[in-house]
Parts: sequence; structure tokens; C-alpha cells
Amino acid sequence: MSSRDDVETAFWAYERALMANDLDALDELFAPGPSILRGDAAGILVGHDAISQFRKGRGGAPAREILHVEIRELTDATALVIAITAPATGGRGQQSQLWTLVDGAWRVSAAHVSLPAPAINGAVWRTVGTPLVRGASAGPLRGETVAVKDLYDVAGFAVGAGIPAYLAEASPATGTSPAVAALLAAGADVTGIAQTDEFAYSIAGRNPHYGTPPNPAVLGGVPGGSSSGPASAVALGQASIGLGTDTAGSIRVPASYQGLWGLRSTHGSVSSDRLLPLAPTFDSVGWMTRSAAILRACAAATLDATKQVAVEPSFVMAPALLEHCEPDVRAAFSRFAFDAVDLGDVDELFLAFRTVQAAEAWATHGAWISAHPGALGEDVAGRFAFASTIDSAAEASGRVALAAARNRLNALLGDRVLVLPSASSTAPSVFADPELIERTRQGTLRLTCIAGITGRPALSIPLLTVPQPGALLRAPVGVCLVGPRFGDLALIDLAEQLAG
Amino acid sequence: MSSRDDVETAFWAYERALMANDLDALDELFAPGPSILRGDAAGILVGHDAISQFRKGRGGAPAREILHVEIRELTDATALVIAITAPATGGRGQQSQLWTLVDGAWRVSAAHVSLPAPAINGAVWRTVGTPLVRGASAGPLRGETVAVKDLYDVAGFAVGAGIPAYLAEASPATGTSPAVAALLAAGADVTGIAQTDEFAYSIAGRNPHYGTPPNPAVLGGVPGGSSSGPASAVALGQASIGLGTDTAGSIRVPASYQGLWGLRSTHGSVSSDRLLPLAPTFDSVGWMTRSAAILRACAAATLDATKQVAVEPSFVMAPALLEHCEPDVRAAFSRFAFDAVDLGDVDELFLAFRTVQAAEAWATHGAWISAHPGALGEDVAGRFAFASTIDSAAEASGRVALAAARNRLNALLGDRVLVLPSASSTAPSVFADPELIERTRQGTLRLTCIAGITGRPALSIPLLTVPQPGALLRAPVGVCLVGPRFGDLALIDLAEQLAG
Repeated sequence: MSSRDDVETAFWAYERALMANDLDALDELFAPGPSILRGDAAGILVGHDAISQFRKGRGGAPAREILHVEIRELTDATALVIAITAPATGGRGQQSQLWTLVDGAWRVSAAHVSLPAPAINGAVWRTVGTPLVRGASAGPLRGETVAVKDLYDVAGFAVGAGIPAYLAEASPATGTSPAVAALLAAGADVTGIAQTDEFAYSIAGRNPHYGTPPNPAVLGGVPGGSSSGPASAVALGQASIGLGTDTAGSIRVPASYQGLWGLRSTHGSVSSDRLLPLAPTFDSVGWMTRSAAILRACAAATLDATKQVAVEPSFVMAPALLEHCEPDVRAAFSRFAFDAVDLGDVDELFLAFRTVQAAEAWATHGAWISAHPGALGEDVAGRFAFASTIDSAAEASGRVALAAARNRLNALLGDRVLVLPSASSTAPSVFADPELIERTRQGTLRLTCIAGITGRPALSIPLLTVPQPGALLRAPVGVCLVGPRFGDLALIDLAEQLAG
Repeated sequence: MSSRDDVETAFWAYERALMANDLDALDELFAPGPSILRGDAAGILVGHDAISQFRKGRGGAPAREILHVEIRELTDATALVIAITAPATGGRGQQSQLWTLVDGAWRVSAAHVSLPAPAINGAVWRTVGTPLVRGASAGPLRGETVAVKDLYDVAGFAVGAGIPAYLAEASPATGTSPAVAALLAAGADVTGIAQTDEFAYSIAGRNPHYGTPPNPAVLGGVPGGSSSGPASAVALGQASIGLGTDTAGSIRVPASYQGLWGLRSTHGSVSSDRLLPLAPTFDSVGWMTRSAAILRACAAATLDATKQVAVEPSFVMAPALLEHCEPDVRAAFSRFAFDAVDLGDVDELFLAFRTVQAAEAWATHGAWISAHPGALGEDVAGRFAFASTIDSAAEASGRVALAAARNRLNALLGDRVLVLPSASSTAPSVFADPELIERTRQGTLRLTCIAGITGRPALSIPLLTVPQPGALLRAPVGVCLVGPRFGDLALIDLAEQLAG
């Protein structure tokens, strides 16, 4: 038998094993070692173990037929095999494999798999159009495309808030939220309505109904939430502007996890009309983009210029906050050597924030949730269950503590700009240990609550990356600037100085 | 310098040439010969010349950065290079290249390119959702997904008819067309509203405003129209049912070009309420699917069962029609040896059809077109310009000729089933010579007008393929069955006998 025949035999053995999801056979048919590669639309896996783990996790490859196989013998011990596939769900795919003779057997040492695209990525979007809503024919945002978080009214479309049972009862909006209208008036088109964590009450970006949007910056990483859909849409190049909301980090965290620019605007500076609230004391409008220029244009198109203030480049850091970060994030921040401020007991700050946030969240959505048992996934349902336990006495003392915290932070920070990580870690893997998930969540919320408590604007800058074990690319982590109220535009301008 | 360094140098030279669109350098950097391969989401190009032509046609690759390069030296003369790309428009791509040393220089002998998917393929769809409209919670079509041609009312959405200027003036529909409602009631979800040729007055599938939907069965081939969006959506696996219309072949032609099942239902058997007409004497509702079973379920869910009739397997062919086909289609049909019927002068049949179609098309859309100069692309505008010349005398004599043709064909065919090609050719290339396009169009219309004239149902079966020069896969051509009126379901059942 020629080596060509041997390769062809091995190819079909692999195909049968793939369709049967025979993991042992697939492991055997991939070459061993840490340098083999497997790439698809999600990214490139490196090494036999990572590829094996991926196969274990996915529960079988999609059913398909092989329509055509091309074999190119390169040497006695290497061959390229390119196949055209016909997925059972329609369309055409392609698979390129490099086969090598290892220990007398032909094995795959690199693979590149392409599958047909779906009509819509339902983890990212709920509805999209070409465009869904056309913007003004001229303006500074002409040519830009917006992914609107599914909390804002867009005339003619219902708000779903990440919850199918909520969407099923919602009526089409009779008008458009001012935050959306401002972008349309500046010339941007609305591409579509993008997914959110349920009622925006999470920073993970994992929606149990619609799925987890991909994070193109971190293979297998969560996208960050709750503005997960708009963030992934922008990171994937499916929109240039993600219109989000940020109560406890819901813009800054996905921006940080996915390497985007993100601005949580000064609380109260953008109308929250026709925007589904979570905790109105903290809920802020904001944007995620791939460029500072577009982020600035969004803010300029939306914010009242007469209220905006200048900000001096007087940067400070709070070492106590870095203690809540993972070691790689802390190490990356060692490049900054700004004056230190002492925020006091960070847990106490967070507790005040959390108590009022929870009380307001339950006041906003408690009645609906009580009337719809089972409508929410476990994670967010559990958070609301906690929120329901905040009685009026606890809420009242929380509000006292919140006011004190606000006064203390304002006195401490004054007109200065606090520099801190946008999140305590890079994007955790969707398969991460629940303990790690909870630790990084608690750490991140201690960072994000500073802007929440003070109502200050917070800008996440995609300035730093840290190594990712086993991955080809480094993972992003945002540098967050928390500045004086109404210093939104000035913060974006300061970012360049910080980066330089 | 090691060969690894040489490969890396060649890789970067290629990347620079790609970004500069230096076609000579790119041609030089690809290995010569007919066996080299280049694949992307559209399919696989074979041979240096085809790849060179593709690069000439596209006007430059999308701008990108290279984020990471992996090089695997396989031998002294072969290396694999895998790169992670960052398109300027966002997202991540991947490129795998096999480099070989040819005549002392490193050259690409195979390449596989993946780009990030867009939010929506605007050539295929106008609006999509997850789903856009949910169907009944139970029914024979539960789990199926519908691409609705942009001529049908879907409550809450405007009809665009493939023309942006028409869409801009349209109001959201206040109800849903019965043809759509029947599928929803049977449990299918509407995934979205799919593109059409302008006012459905074409069989090409090339929309000058929204682009040409891809034909996954024929690399670089037109999709066929006018139900181009629904057809491509189904062929791509983005929907399982394409709801189309067929006046002069608008379901049968895209089904034939893309290897789908397609049924033009008996004229008048499905309500045309809330459906934008073209030529009401001929306009028929119908479906395109990847399987006979789903096609049958669509027809059964929509048609009045009490009116359906049985059909005997008495097949006939018309040699005069095959004379209007390209040689490869004619050759493929030589496998059928049914009794011949003499249709008389086919040009005369077509002329009667065309005169009445044109008169009705102008009566339907002439006023709008006259009020909107420039709103239509050249091709369809030209067709309507011709239609505007049919005066009432010409129309009247056309109707007399049409009635005579109908009587003659009905007498000739009786209860028998006419077997003919669904189109005169396989899908022409988007770059095909205009003379070829016009010849195949004229040929196809002579085939499709038989069902148009008689109002008989016509089923296109994806039964045959013919070789495509230079392509790895064969191209589909449909076998069309034109049966007795109200024999829709029976025709689908007969198809199995024909295939067997």
C-alpha cells in the first residue's frame, strides 16, 4: 500500500471516530505533544491535552458528510488532507489537516476547521437587521453600527432583558430610548439588539437561556457581563459601538475581558428614560468600542457638553484595591507608580454598595420574579433571592453607609483620577473552578463599586495584557480611570497620556 | 539562514504583498500548477490560475494585522505556517498555509483562510431574530426555521421587496400573510426576512443594493432568483424552509442552481393575501427545502387537503424544451426515456406568457417606478421599461394567445406529468459573459413558462449533477415535474419513484 493509501485510510478512520465521538480513537489519531494545533472560528488550541479536553467538553462534533477529499503527499512522512464537508444542518464546511507519520502511524499534527455561519449568533444577538434602524444621513457617527443591550427601548421591538419569559410578555416599544436616539441622530445605524445577563444582574456574561457569547480575545473565556452581547458584538467586529449599562461593572468588566474601550458615564448624565432599570442609584449608560475616537464620539453625541468639566492629569492609586486582584493583574499594574490613597476598609465600601443595589434590584424586579418562578437561571435567581432578604431596616442602614462612603471617597479623591484595574482578573474560562469564579467576582466588585458609590465616570482602557498559560495570545486586562463627575470626555483625552 | 528563517521571511513578504494588493508578487508567492488549493468560507479554488483570477476580481484583501505566527518545519522543503489575524473591522481570523520550496523559493501550495462572521449576511437576509417570530408550540413543523421572502407581510415588519427606496416608504405590516401564518401554525419559527431580486422580476438572484447571496453548491455561481435569499439561507443551513414565490421560475431556478427541493404550488391554491404581487395571473406561493419530507410538510400545512388530487406516474418529456438547454444539462437528462410530447412552438408559448406577465408587472408597480426614477438597478429597470411598452392592444392579444396556449397545453398533457430540467443550465458564474447569461435566461424561461401558463404545480428535485470545470464538486441541476393542478402533494410522493 502506498503512503497515500495509508493516509486515506487514516483519514476515514478519523472521520468515523469523529462521527461516533470515539474520544480514545480521536486522541490516538492526533499526534502527541504540546506543539500540535487545532483551530476553528473560536481560536487555536495548542497541544494534545488541550485538544483532547476540548473534545471531551463539546459532546460530539456536528454530524456531517464528506463531499470530497484532496490528498497531497508532501514527503514519505507528511501529507496534507483537505476535505469539503456537508454538515447535516446544511451549508458547506472545510477541514485542512496536516498528517504526519509518528511511531509508524499516521496522525494529525495540525487541523483547521471551518463550519458554515449561522443566520444569527443567538448568544450575542436577539435581533439584527441591515440595519435594524437607520440613523441620520449625516453626523459624526455616520458609518458606525450599534449593538443595543436588550434593556433599551427601540421603537417597534420589545425589551427582553435576557429572559425569554419576560420577552414573551413584553409589547413592542412605542418609542426609542434617548441613549439610542442620540446615537441614531449622530448618524450611527442600529445593527441589532444584543443579549444581556438576566436583568443585567451579573458580571459573568453567561446567559442560561441564550448561551455564552464568545470572547475572541480569550479562547474559552467568558465575555464578561452584563453587557455581554454588545461587548462581544464589538470585539467580533459585528458592530462598532456597544451601547450598554453599568451598575456594578457591567461595561467595564466585559471591556476589560475582551480588550475593548469602555466608558461608564457619570451617573445621571444620560437620561434613563425607556431603559429597564436594575438599581437606579447606580445604573449608568455607557459604550464599548474598539477605538478611543469612536468612544469619544459616542460620549460627545450623547452627553450635555455644557456640563462636562476639564480634568487634570493627577493620577492616584489605591494599593488596597490591588490586593483584591489576581497575581498576574497585580504584576501588570506594577508599571504604574502613582501616589497612593488609602480607601480604608474596602469590604465596608462594597457592603454599603451591595445592600442598596440589592434592595433596589428587588424593588425593581421582585414582583415579576415572584410571579414567574423558574424564569431565571440559578445564578441570577440566587442573587435576587439574596436581594429579597434586604428588609427596609437593612436598606435604610445601607443607605446611611452608602452616603458616608460617598462622602469619604469624594473627600479623598477630590478632582484626582483614580487608576485601578477594570477587573480583578482576566476573563475566567467557562470551565473555571467555581471557587475561582467567585473569588474573582468578589475581587472585581470591590474595584467597580468605587465608581458606583460616587457616581463618577469610569473609563476602561485596553492597555495591558498578561500571559495566558497554553494559549498563543496574551489576555487583556483594562486600566480603569475613575475621574470627577462630568469628566467623561476629559478622561478619554487623558487616556492617551497614560498610554504614552 | 535556516529554512525556518527563510519561511518566515517569505511569510512576511506575502503578507506585505497581500496588504498592498500586489498581484504580481502574490502570483509569484503562490506555487505554480493546477493542483494548488485556496479555501475560505465560499469554497475551495483549485489551481494557480483560478486563485490568481480570484485575487484580481476581489480588489484587495481586507486590512488586518498579524497577531501571532506559528511555524512548523516539516522537511527541508515544506513548512506549515499558521497565523492568527486581527481584521481591521474587528474579531479574529485564522490562516493556515502550506509552504513548499519550489525552484529555490518558498511558495504557498495550499491555504485555508477563516474570517470572522458578520452579524448578518445582508445579501441573504434583511432582518433575523432568535427567532424573529415564534411558531406554535406544537405541530408537524416544530423545530423548523423559515426564511420569508421579503414580499410577504410579517406583522410588525415592513415589506422591502429588494428595493431600499421602497422599504424606506413602507409601514410595518399590521398582520401576517396566510402563507406565513400557515407555517407558524404548524410550529415552524420564522428566523427572518430574506432578500429577493427587486420586485421579484428576475431569475438571476443578483440584487444591486444588497448584493448577491452565495451559492454554496457552485463556487462563484449566482444563487438564482428571485427567491434568492430564502434559497441561499436554506442551502447555507441558516434556515430549513425558504418561503418564496414563483412567477416565472423564481422558486424552481434557485432550487435547481443550489441543489434544493423546490415546489411552486398550484396557482391559486394558496391565498395571496398580504403578499406583494408581480403578475397575479402567474404568481404562486412555494417552498424550498433540503429534504423532501420537510417540503411535503410545508405543503401539507398550507394547502387545502380536500382539493388535492392523486397523480398517476405517467411521465412525459418534451424534446423541444431540451433544445433550449446547455449541452451538459441535456446530456444529464439523457438518462430519462419517457414518452415524448410535442409542445409546438415554444417561443410562441413564451411570448404569450411574457406579454401578459409584463403587462401585469407594469400595472402592479409602474406607478411607483415612474415616481421613483433611479430606485431600481439597471437590469430590473430595463425589464420594467420593456413592460411599460405593452399597450392595452398588445396585452389583449397576449391574453388571447395565453388562453389558447393554456388550452393547448392542458389538452396535450392531460393528467400526465411533464419531466423537464428546472433550468436550462447550472448556476452561471457571477463573472459569466453577459451573452451566456442572456442565453441561459432565455432558455430557462422557455422551460419555466409551461407551469406558468397552465397554473400547474411544479416540483424541482435535486436529482442530477454535472461536472464543473476547475471545481472539486459537481454542480446541481434540478429535475422538474409539472403535474396536474392540485397534484402538489402527489408530485412530491412521485419524486421518490423517479429518483429510484
